[in-house]
Amino acid sequence: MPAPPAAPDALAARWRHYRAGPLGDDLVAAAVVTVLLVPQSLAYALLAGLPPVAGVMASLLPVLAYAAFGSSTTLAVGPVAVIAMMTSQAIAPVAAAHGVEPTLVAGVLAAQMAIVFVLAAWLRLDMLAALLGAPVLHGFVTGAALVIALGQLPALLGLKLSGHTATEMAGAAIVAAQAGGWRALVPHAGTAAVGLAALALLVGVRRHGARLGRSAGLGTRAALLLARVAPMFVVAAAIAWMALGPAAWREGVALAGRIDLAAGLRVAAPWQAPAGVWLDLLGPAVLIGLVAYVESLAVAEALGARRGERVRPRRELFGLAAANAASSVSGGMPVTGGFARSIVAFDAGARTRMAGVWTALGLALVLMLAGNLLGWLPKAVLAATIIVAVLGLLDLEPFRLAWRYARAEFALMLAVAGLTVFAGVEPALLAGVVAAVALLLRNTARPHWAEVGRLPGTEVFRNIKRFAVQTHPHVLALRIDESLVFTNSRWLVETLLEQVLARPALRHVVLMMPGVNGIDLTGLEALRQLAAELAQRGVALHLSELKGPVADRLATADPGSWLTGEVFRTQHEADAALAMRTQGPR
Amino acid sequence: MPAPPAAPDALAARWRHYRAGPLGDDLVAAAVVTVLLVPQSLAYALLAGLPPVAGVMASLLPVLAYAAFGSSTTLAVGPVAVIAMMTSQAIAPVAAAHGVEPTLVAGVLAAQMAIVFVLAAWLRLDMLAALLGAPVLHGFVTGAALVIALGQLPALLGLKLSGHTATEMAGAAIVAAQAGGWRALVPHAGTAAVGLAALALLVGVRRHGARLGRSAGLGTRAALLLARVAPMFVVAAAIAWMALGPAAWREGVALAGRIDLAAGLRVAAPWQAPAGVWLDLLGPAVLIGLVAYVESLAVAEALGARRGERVRPRRELFGLAAANAASSVSGGMPVTGGFARSIVAFDAGARTRMAGVWTALGLALVLMLAGNLLGWLPKAVLAATIIVAVLGLLDLEPFRLAWRYARAEFALMLAVAGLTVFAGVEPALLAGVVAAVALLLRNTARPHWAEVGRLPGTEVFRNIKRFAVQTHPHVLALRIDESLVFTNSRWLVETLLEQVLARPALRHVVLMMPGVNGIDLTGLEALRQLAAELAQRGVALHLSELKGPVADRLATADPGSWLTGEVFRTQHEADAALAMRTQGPR
Repeated sequence: MPAPPAAPDALAARWRHYRAGPLGDDLVAAAVVTVLLVPQSLAYALLAGLPPVAGVMASLLPVLAYAAFGSSTTLAVGPVAVIAMMTSQAIAPVAAAHGVEPTLVAGVLAAQMAIVFVLAAWLRLDMLAALLGAPVLHGFVTGAALVIALGQLPALLGLKLSGHTATEMAGAAIVAAQAGGWRALVPHAGTAAVGLAALALLVGVRRHGARLGRSAGLGTRAALLLARVAPMFVVAAAIAWMALGPAAWREGVALAGRIDLAAGLRVAAPWQAPAGVWLDLLGPAVLIGLVAYVESLAVAEALGARRGERVRPRRELFGLAAANAASSVSGGMPVTGGFARSIVAFDAGARTRMAGVWTALGLALVLMLAGNLLGWLPKAVLAATIIVAVLGLLDLEPFRLAWRYARAEFALMLAVAGLTVFAGVEPALLAGVVAAVALLLRNTARPHWAEVGRLPGTEVFRNIKRFAVQTHPHVLALRIDESLVFTNSRWLVETLLEQVLARPALRHVVLMMPGVNGIDLTGLEALRQLAAELAQRGVALHLSELKGPVADRLATADPGSWLTGEVFRTQHEADAALAMRTQGPR
Repeated sequence: MPAPPAAPDALAARWRHYRAGPLGDDLVAAAVVTVLLVPQSLAYALLAGLPPVAGVMASLLPVLAYAAFGSSTTLAVGPVAVIAMMTSQAIAPVAAAHGVEPTLVAGVLAAQMAIVFVLAAWLRLDMLAALLGAPVLHGFVTGAALVIALGQLPALLGLKLSGHTATEMAGAAIVAAQAGGWRALVPHAGTAAVGLAALALLVGVRRHGARLGRSAGLGTRAALLLARVAPMFVVAAAIAWMALGPAAWREGVALAGRIDLAAGLRVAAPWQAPAGVWLDLLGPAVLIGLVAYVESLAVAEALGARRGERVRPRRELFGLAAANAASSVSGGMPVTGGFARSIVAFDAGARTRMAGVWTALGLALVLMLAGNLLGWLPKAVLAATIIVAVLGLLDLEPFRLAWRYARAEFALMLAVAGLTVFAGVEPALLAGVVAAVALLLRNTARPHWAEVGRLPGTEVFRNIKRFAVQTHPHVLALRIDESLVFTNSRWLVETLLEQVLARPALRHVVLMMPGVNGIDLTGLEALRQLAAELAQRGVALHLSELKGPVADRLATADPGSWLTGEVFRTQHEADAALAMRTQGPR
């Protein structure tokens, strides 16, 4: 029975309870996150090829929408690096082809992602997220971090280059070199100075900030928070430098430009975009939606585990749908749950979803008061912010583990990372998923099997190659360690016939199936064919140790009419019964 | 060490041996097959949209080439119905787009199939044939038989309709009706009379021929052979009718036209075709090659089983490559091993591959002597031949079995058959393979699992829902009946956490893994995540009954650093050890 709507009294009581308890913690956390969000929102908008205000808009309404529909109390949604980079690859060609503003195209993309999420929830397609297994996901995130960092070099150093992949950037560098000689590739001194200084400061704060804070007498948590908000001081220093530094060093340094919230809201609504834009974005919306969902779910689950709270995968789809719909109608860009911003709120002590609401309000306040001032921020500083953020995504541990544990999956991981850097996001993800499925099929296609015999004096049957066991010359017992499915049925028939042809004295074959979790139609036909071919050679086919569900299903396939031997409950019973029988099929 | 080339003496000795033994049987079989091949070759060329001589050429050199390179002694290669139909769908648009002769396009297609076969053998891709599992193959063959039979109705009845699918034919019928009223769809009387009479005779001979022959005093085998060659009498009767019957009935009946072997050989060589033709046929060549290989292999294996001979799948690729290369340079069409022609040779008593050679020679002789006469054969009779042949491919037994045994695979079979009839071969096969892989992934994604307990007084652990077993309130033992792979890893974590949250007294979880045949990288990460999340709730994660290869591999992933519990050899040991421990992770 749903709870009745809260009466005004109850609402007031809840508010009193909230004010007495979590409100203070939530407000502190919101202040910290706001400070972090300001440069990040601007940076990720530039990464997506959009004006800075789009990143800001994507950090306001979507936060409120997610708080209303999502299931996690700790997830912070907004623009994130990988999704911003995918957005840039998706919208640039569409905006050029249809001659429309990139901001409008980004809005359409966010709207389509919202539709994709709702459809996926409705059709229960959330399990498709499983297609992005560990090798594909780690490879993709690694490649994305590298290509994002690479793509920021021109903005950081003041080079005139562009491109969405390493291949495109190398091509642009060659063209530039041919057009203007290698001097076209020399950094702009003022830009590079600001950019590299910001990069050095940000890296320094990230590495040593917390330690410095503690040695200055701060508590551990306060020191950590100070290190988290330190980027804002770098931003402030850069703005001061551009306003007050020597004119010769400021000349020609590209600035972020004034953040005009009103202009951000004046972007046309997505339904005003031409139909061709919608059509062209269909594929990217599905792919970006998949990545956004998988990443956000992983963050929500990781944080939920720390707090002992369960995330509901289907409800998360609705939360992300609401967030992207809100972003699309308010001049924003595609959003999802981000690890960096979520962990900051978590560490800063956010206790309820209201922290996200306060963050959105705080951000709006900062931009209204200081929007003009932020316009003085050099793009090179934003580039440095992005580089530091994405290099934090680099993690070589999964590569090391895969190298030791699963060489083929290591190769897959590396290939997906390489394709992401050199060929772009879409080919990398599509090829990665296809290859992962092919690897899985290959594993089922050549199953492990072993000839087994009795451990003397026991009812236990083991691999004859690993143990000293007893066998009979007229009985062959094979344990099959895989479901019988279409990918391995022909292999099964061929392998078994080969074994049988090599043993003229054979009269009985027993397939021991404790590891057979299913037999599909092709597997069933293979068993029938096998029984028939063995019968022609005077050999009976028996089965043993079928699992309950497998045996139940096999009984519907009229085994009496084709199985030349018996179905034994255990291999022990099969062995005991066949040891005496030296005749072939009945 | 390869055998040295046979000396002339040895060759003569082998010939003497052959002459004294199998020669007689081979010659009789060759005569029977030749008689069968004459109308079939012409018919399948028409089915492929080619002049009749293409079918004849495809029955000459390819037979010799296969005899030299193939591995089966019983397989008869040549044009077959399903491949001819696929050829027609593939070459018609290409011939139209490039303005070249369909015969040349067919030659290019055969050449590309030869290349595909050699590449597949070289790259060991023969296992890709497993992608065509039973549901896709049965569904496709059924749909192909129906659409081939449907496609012959215009030739059989003298209608002016064409189209490669039921949809295209229905469209053509509507257009014809609109253009000329329904009278355009009325059969041509003379054609329909010849066609329906031939159809009735062929069906009658097929159903009752052997019985009639036996009641006329023939032995069983002779009666069977007579029934097999009876179609030739129908052909002769139709030719006589066209030559001698009343003129009013012959008027307007379409004839096969003179078979000019010399003209067949004058077709341009495939390498003279424009590059665009080669490019456009790349996809169809792979798809038709896949179907041709799977069908041929199935026939060779079925016949090989009867004779106790093993077929070598890779060598078969070379045999089919040689046959198609030979067909392509001699004005033929794509060929493969056919069930009908192989079984006739087998039943007629062919003993060696030389029977195929004699058949080719016999066929050439018949066509040189009687090529003009065969030109009088009405196309309606050839259409009747095709209809009778393909309706023999219809087999409802797989549908019945699938309905009982595997409802989802039944739906897949039906869908592939329907797509083949209404949408064509390529979409049907591609959608079928994708759906079959999706079904397989779905089965791994939601594995069967069971909570298990001890059967009192034994070391056996069974499903608590099926047996009365003993459990401990602080220990949860779950048996997982599927490999841990990326498609089910998240499911595993969620399902287990749900179980654990419902039992506050729990301190130990044991995953019993006798049915786990592999753990991929994503599965490994899921286990690590599970161990960490359980530890936060004070619950230890143990494993039991790992298979040898799984345990060996897990040991490379440093389980000591993350596994909060132990790895037990058997569930009995785990249960005995944990019954006493009521503490959580060490």
